[in-house]
Amino acid sequence: MRKKVEDHNVFRQILLGTFIHSKSRTELEYMHNAAVAVNSHGTIAAVALGCDSLEDAKEKVLRETGWSDEEDDNDDEGEIHVYPNVGIFGKSTLLDWLAKYTFPLEASLSDLAKAKRVYTACVRRTLAHGTTTATYYATIDVPATNLLADLCLSLGQRAFVGRVCMDRADICPEFYRDASTQASLDATRKTIAHIDRIDPGYELISPILTPRFAPSCSDASMDGLTQLHKDRQIPVQTHISENKGELQLVKDLFPESSSYADVYDTHGLLTRKTVLAHGVHLSDAEASLIASRESKISHCPCSNSSLTSGEARVRWLWEKGIEVGLGTDMSGGYSPSILEAARQATLTSRHLAMQMQEGEDREKCKLSVEEALFLATRGGARCLGLADKIGGFEVGKQLDAQLITLGTVDENGLRAGEEESVHDAGNVDVFGWESWDEKVAKWLYNGDDRNTKKVWVKGRLVHSRR
Amino acid sequence: MRKKVEDHNVFRQILLGTFIHSKSRTELEYMHNAAVAVNSHGTIAAVALGCDSLEDAKEKVLRETGWSDEEDDNDDEGEIHVYPNVGIFGKSTLLDWLAKYTFPLEASLSDLAKAKRVYTACVRRTLAHGTTTATYYATIDVPATNLLADLCLSLGQRAFVGRVCMDRADICPEFYRDASTQASLDATRKTIAHIDRIDPGYELISPILTPRFAPSCSDASMDGLTQLHKDRQIPVQTHISENKGELQLVKDLFPESSSYADVYDTHGLLTRKTVLAHGVHLSDAEASLIASRESKISHCPCSNSSLTSGEARVRWLWEKGIEVGLGTDMSGGYSPSILEAARQATLTSRHLAMQMQEGEDREKCKLSVEEALFLATRGGARCLGLADKIGGFEVGKQLDAQLITLGTVDENGLRAGEEESVHDAGNVDVFGWESWDEKVAKWLYNGDDRNTKKVWVKGRLVHSRR
Repeated sequence: MRKKVEDHNVFRQILLGTFIHSKSRTELEYMHNAAVAVNSHGTIAAVALGCDSLEDAKEKVLRETGWSDEEDDNDDEGEIHVYPNVGIFGKSTLLDWLAKYTFPLEASLSDLAKAKRVYTACVRRTLAHGTTTATYYATIDVPATNLLADLCLSLGQRAFVGRVCMDRADICPEFYRDASTQASLDATRKTIAHIDRIDPGYELISPILTPRFAPSCSDASMDGLTQLHKDRQIPVQTHISENKGELQLVKDLFPESSSYADVYDTHGLLTRKTVLAHGVHLSDAEASLIASRESKISHCPCSNSSLTSGEARVRWLWEKGIEVGLGTDMSGGYSPSILEAARQATLTSRHLAMQMQEGEDREKCKLSVEEALFLATRGGARCLGLADKIGGFEVGKQLDAQLITLGTVDENGLRAGEEESVHDAGNVDVFGWESWDEKVAKWLYNGDDRNTKKVWVKGRLVHSRR
Repeated sequence: MRKKVEDHNVFRQILLGTFIHSKSRTELEYMHNAAVAVNSHGTIAAVALGCDSLEDAKEKVLRETGWSDEEDDNDDEGEIHVYPNVGIFGKSTLLDWLAKYTFPLEASLSDLAKAKRVYTACVRRTLAHGTTTATYYATIDVPATNLLADLCLSLGQRAFVGRVCMDRADICPEFYRDASTQASLDATRKTIAHIDRIDPGYELISPILTPRFAPSCSDASMDGLTQLHKDRQIPVQTHISENKGELQLVKDLFPESSSYADVYDTHGLLTRKTVLAHGVHLSDAEASLIASRESKISHCPCSNSSLTSGEARVRWLWEKGIEVGLGTDMSGGYSPSILEAARQATLTSRHLAMQMQEGEDREKCKLSVEEALFLATRGGARCLGLADKIGGFEVGKQLDAQLITLGTVDENGLRAGEEESVHDAGNVDVFGWESWDEKVAKWLYNGDDRNTKKVWVKGRLVHSRR
């Protein structure tokens, strides 16, 4: 069944232009006059940078790979500017941002025609925004969850697809919960078996164990998921410490636990393959516990702000030694765009700073453009155990990347191409006097899906726009 | 010279569809099956609402106006959904969001070719985002300021255009300041005289007195502006209480004043025709003073968040009895979009709420969708003394409005029109099950300039997109 992935013809390709990726948490690397050669498995076979011209760069990777010139079918020469982008932590089912609609809407997706419509729109939409890897909270329904996995595979999005576990009858509504603990675990196994069939090596699609959050799960179901986690090394995602009402609920339901994090830990669900969404109100002890278990946090600033949940302290989490990625958390978050999430991460860090006295700590609290883009790319890859596979333009990495173009303003103040309506370059206006740092900042603050001209996942072109 | 305005042929027109405007601060009015008849002066001559069909609505306004059917050249029948939008408080010159570039960039606009390029892009861009009325801080340069006024007039944007006054040599950089107090006042008079010539009735373009902020102005120049304000009833705009460093500077420079607001008040600059940008850190006494003078505040959340200035308390300002509008404050704010400003106003109110204890006050602090849209429309109109002219679909008001369309998702999960690339409906996905409230909320949170299909100012179509 590996063939299913390979069916989508991926040819050898050579990309030319300026390539940008996160070099470290605080630094972007700009590779001008560069070439990236990608083989038919979607893996980067050679990178040439620091050349005198694009032509030189191309010749260099041709020499290194021994490929002939004909294999290059790229028509973007000289214009491209690519950014690898990973790590959306979305709840795909929630296309309406109103939390009160969550359960009814998820439940309604057991209608597979509706699920197909909503999920197709969601996967295509997030791909169009440059999200090359997504983690999904699907629904409790097995066929709907399996359908989402099928759609990600056929549309080409790298994805972790989780069937939502919620079997606790005193918390979950009757119309939308697992019938029993056993039924919950059986259903989860069915979605894993489905993904085993469609993508046996988890090359593109992986299952992910998804207890919705502690209050929705019986102790027995959490223990069962932990057993699955140990047996199969399947990653885990759940929520933690999103808002204060939830904290109180956890305290009431788990009086024997010393903290929210402790609930997961005592059930064996805090491991290095665990991604925890939010982590807004974590205590010092909880952060230390999470760090010691090497679990990760997905920061969802759009959601946390729009739902008035709070402001997660990314800098503090980093200082605790916790890896952080970025999530859109639709529909708690209003936007499908990981770029909007990165933008809001910088703004949320500034709102945190505003609550501090002027001085060093206040300045330190703020996330830079570079740090926000790190969160959206390599940070996410690290959270998902993909750091050796994706996140940068390095030989041996798979090509998960997007081609970004910015708008230009001509001498008359008109946007190039605007009069002929040949394309809509969006809201980033480049006048010509901007440095590369400034261009990237303009993209972060005013860019949108119109600037994302092409998106590749594992070398396959999965989205393009003229 | 009135002719210059009238040159742009505005024909009688009848708009049909669903019209939405702010009814009050907390309520939107949805007028379905409605017709709005606009005369050749751009004024609404008749409104029919609550009809059984668009055809009925059209017949009703034809009967009321006595116009013949041929006068309707509108081809959007049945699809339109219009929102009047006013009140951007921008600094047009600052197209780069980095504050450190402000003075050099403003100074460089004395190069009129460059000014034409930057201002044309700016006015066209804000029109494309549905900003029908803008207030501009231009530069200290008279020809550049006059050029901006000319461009607004020819491109059709209602605008208050201010030449920036900054004559204080100990504060303003040598390369960018008025040569003397007298030179400053003379230059300001020249820009007023220019607008007197191109739009004598201030039908579309009005001058606005623009002391940049108290620290940049000598006492004599503030007194001189106050005299102009009294003589000519020209409105005033300036900044107040944006960030804490600025507060300290004002305290140091004006030791005799009891507060920042008091500096303006003692110079006679706080009147009902004064618009103060920001007002983040106002004291209770300052807010009371501003309220008693009936001065207005323009709330600029994008700018205040990105520059870590603070969170202006809109609800508190309202409770003090102060009228509030909404501003983009480019380039302190990163976005040219008044819709983004409205969105950020809701988020900033939530960040304020997060600093409160759970309970009534916390809930009350949050701005609703309706309140954010009020700020962006009638709130702005009231701040600018235009409440009787624009801001709603009422007989006698001028037609300043935008046509909004939202994207629809077809049964296969594809966006309608997407495959044929006939249009790009942006990021608002309508599945068909949404209420009108939900559609408006989706537009506020995910809409952008792609949803703004047409923009009218004083009845003239000033922007359209397919």
